[in-house]
Amino acid sequence: MGDPNDAAGRTRGRREIHSGSVGRFGVEEVDLPNGRRVSLEILRHPGAAAVVPIHPDGSITLIRQYRHAAGGTIWEIPAGKLEPGEAPAHCALRELAEEAGLAGVLTPLLPLFTTPAFTDEVIHLFAARELRGVPLALEDDEVIEPVRLPREEVDRMIRAGEIRDGKTIVGILLAWRLAD
Amino acid sequence: MGDPNDAAGRTRGRREIHSGSVGRFGVEEVDLPNGRRVSLEILRHPGAAAVVPIHPDGSITLIRQYRHAAGGTIWEIPAGKLEPGEAPAHCALRELAEEAGLAGVLTPLLPLFTTPAFTDEVIHLFAARELRGVPLALEDDEVIEPVRLPREEVDRMIRAGEIRDGKTIVGILLAWRLAD
Repeated sequence: MGDPNDAAGRTRGRREIHSGSVGRFGVEEVDLPNGRRVSLEILRHPGAAAVVPIHPDGSITLIRQYRHAAGGTIWEIPAGKLEPGEAPAHCALRELAEEAGLAGVLTPLLPLFTTPAFTDEVIHLFAARELRGVPLALEDDEVIEPVRLPREEVDRMIRAGEIRDGKTIVGILLAWRLAD
Repeated sequence: MGDPNDAAGRTRGRREIHSGSVGRFGVEEVDLPNGRRVSLEILRHPGAAAVVPIHPDGSITLIRQYRHAAGGTIWEIPAGKLEPGEAPAHCALRELAEEAGLAGVLTPLLPLFTTPAFTDEVIHLFAARELRGVPLALEDDEVIEPVRLPREEVDRMIRAGEIRDGKTIVGILLAWRLAD
């Protein structure tokens, strides 16, 4: 079995419950490293990329996006699921253009687990600099508005709990640390 | 309908696919604010709490936890799902004791959306100070080891991508900003 903390080889069975646009949801029978066998509900996700568009003055272009699951419109950074076979950096540049109307030069920040209790979703986080405008290209099912905000305002919104999305806060704080 | 950006009143139907320990997974028919009707796969989650145990010298007690979905053992902060009717602060103190063997005084940091594209999960994040030891109390299905790490080492692990869990990075960076 190799490393006892490695999940490889520990799955004894899997029952698929639903396969759809967010991924494959199922129940997996797993032998834990402590010897106990458990049933775990896991959403297997294709992965995603997200990007912090950071301007020379430290200001950031965020998007206001309608998220039904979150109960309304929230602040996020541009992000999207990986297409089959798509490199994370390609996905990040695609979403940066489509959702924020920007092109730029990427720096990788981190591959982030969003909520590892029940999904393998990894969001590949990037910062984007040397930004220039390109046409927005929203999908029919996306309700998104990009807004450029000064660094002090973004900082205040994080402290005030007005920005509440995990990938967005991690991305912004790491991008600023990289820049400082 | 009130605020056009509010999700209240926009759900036209819902088909339940699975109800289990992580929540209720289903497909919702939704009228978006742009007038389009879409089907969205959404996991309705009971919510969770997580807590950053921060010592007077800035060191932090993290846990090493086996997460099958994440492919093995990862670094996290103590966290768990809310029991029915449980206040987030109560849950945070319970998990702090059970998973890290610590008691302390809480400061609220933020209610965090983990991945709002497909779940309403909110993790209520806290910092815990004035820490003292109490007995660990792990569940049978938890494989967890608490480890106290110096601030410089935690900072290095974030920069190096060794800590990759969203709530954990947000919690640590916000707890340090609060302390500085």
